[in-house]
Amino acid sequence: MSKPLIFISNDDGITAKGLRALVDVAKTIGEVVVVAPDKPQSGKGHAVTIKYPLRLTKVDVFENVESWMCTGTPADCVKMAKDILFKDRNVDLVLSGINHGANTSINILYSGTMSAAMEGAIEGKKSIGFSLDDFSSEADFTASKHYIEKIIRRVLDSDRDQPLLLNVNIPSIQLEEIKGIKICRQSRGKWTEEFSKSIDPRGVPYYWLTGRFENLEKDATDTDLWAIANGYVSVVPSNFDLTKHSQLDDLDFII
Amino acid sequence: MSKPLIFISNDDGITAKGLRALVDVAKTIGEVVVVAPDKPQSGKGHAVTIKYPLRLTKVDVFENVESWMCTGTPADCVKMAKDILFKDRNVDLVLSGINHGANTSINILYSGTMSAAMEGAIEGKKSIGFSLDDFSSEADFTASKHYIEKIIRRVLDSDRDQPLLLNVNIPSIQLEEIKGIKICRQSRGKWTEEFSKSIDPRGVPYYWLTGRFENLEKDATDTDLWAIANGYVSVVPSNFDLTKHSQLDDLDFII
Repeated sequence: MSKPLIFISNDDGITAKGLRALVDVAKTIGEVVVVAPDKPQSGKGHAVTIKYPLRLTKVDVFENVESWMCTGTPADCVKMAKDILFKDRNVDLVLSGINHGANTSINILYSGTMSAAMEGAIEGKKSIGFSLDDFSSEADFTASKHYIEKIIRRVLDSDRDQPLLLNVNIPSIQLEEIKGIKICRQSRGKWTEEFSKSIDPRGVPYYWLTGRFENLEKDATDTDLWAIANGYVSVVPSNFDLTKHSQLDDLDFII
Repeated sequence: MSKPLIFISNDDGITAKGLRALVDVAKTIGEVVVVAPDKPQSGKGHAVTIKYPLRLTKVDVFENVESWMCTGTPADCVKMAKDILFKDRNVDLVLSGINHGANTSINILYSGTMSAAMEGAIEGKKSIGFSLDDFSSEADFTASKHYIEKIIRRVLDSDRDQPLLLNVNIPSIQLEEIKGIKICRQSRGKWTEEFSKSIDPRGVPYYWLTGRFENLEKDATDTDLWAIANGYVSVVPSNFDLTKHSQLDDLDFII
């Protein structure tokens, strides 16, 4: 059997250590092609670039891996790869990450990592976004690599035809401390923003976005926030149908 | 009873005609505060600004309406409004739009308009994003204003306590041609990208994102794409829980 073709993107950019860790794992399993942003794109959500042209440049950063950097967002990277690189090649799996920082709860909305994976899923590809709960650029990806290899192999080995979009978060603890993998749901949570105000030399205020994340379901044990706080790798099956189906029969008062 | 406090943002920016149309309607119903981007932010999805500071400047563009422009994305606008303007004031309704261009199907993911509404919903506010299926900056918002007033009044009059995040799309036809309002679900659809390649004066290629949108459920009559193609205003109850709940019991092969 020929090796699976694995496409990889991320949002921390082509030079991120987390991307290198994911490439290292994936190339032991399949043929890998990378298209990643040329600069960090954290917090870019599902943005696409429509007002500026994009560049795609071949780079030589990973041994024996076809790699490109793109001037756009993570979603742009996947769209360019699809249209320019994969017109005649069938991708078996789309991966994104490993993100430096968790993408649990509603952070899936702000996450460029998950948007790249979501673009893969929209194209009908099995897609997985990986994030490590450690923002440091020097984070230790040893435990992540172990679990990521396991998850990729199980997804590729499964002959299930169902669409798959997985949001995987890994706790920032040693491999031997991780208790296993938990399938769970996105926790309800939100940011309490506290814009930090400064005054520029002309006396005009400016603000930095900052804040504290709050888990609104502290007692629930079936959520991604619970899982990574309790030593599990969280796997949330995710979706790009944002319809609240349970409310469809409940809105006749608007008609 | 005191007038409801209505907060409005958009993604086409503070000078967009669609924003003015929405403010015109909302100020007949309540007290209105606007925070909108200082420049167009189409396609910015749920991006937030974390690497640059933000500015918030009071402007005088709408008669008798407190208005601010913000240097950030639509999501930034809502976050700044919450933290800086509404610390001591309770917002009754969050509106976004009227977007110049439809946000049906998966375009909710790329839409700054819907991201602003979604930020309102995350804060527990009843929130509605409005889009007109006409990209022209000179679009005619007459029919939109009629239906938007109807929808806002019904949402405010309803004493239901359920969370509400509505994605409303209006067809680009005359008021008397519109058949009514349809509650529907997000259609499955996707973009077929065709990057348009050009060569710069130095001989290096660059690409413009372009494409065609494809409805993958042409026969379904309960979708937003069907509704606006058939003369209805579409209302999709939407969600920021992206968990695919139906798949939670189906992934044990990964553990």
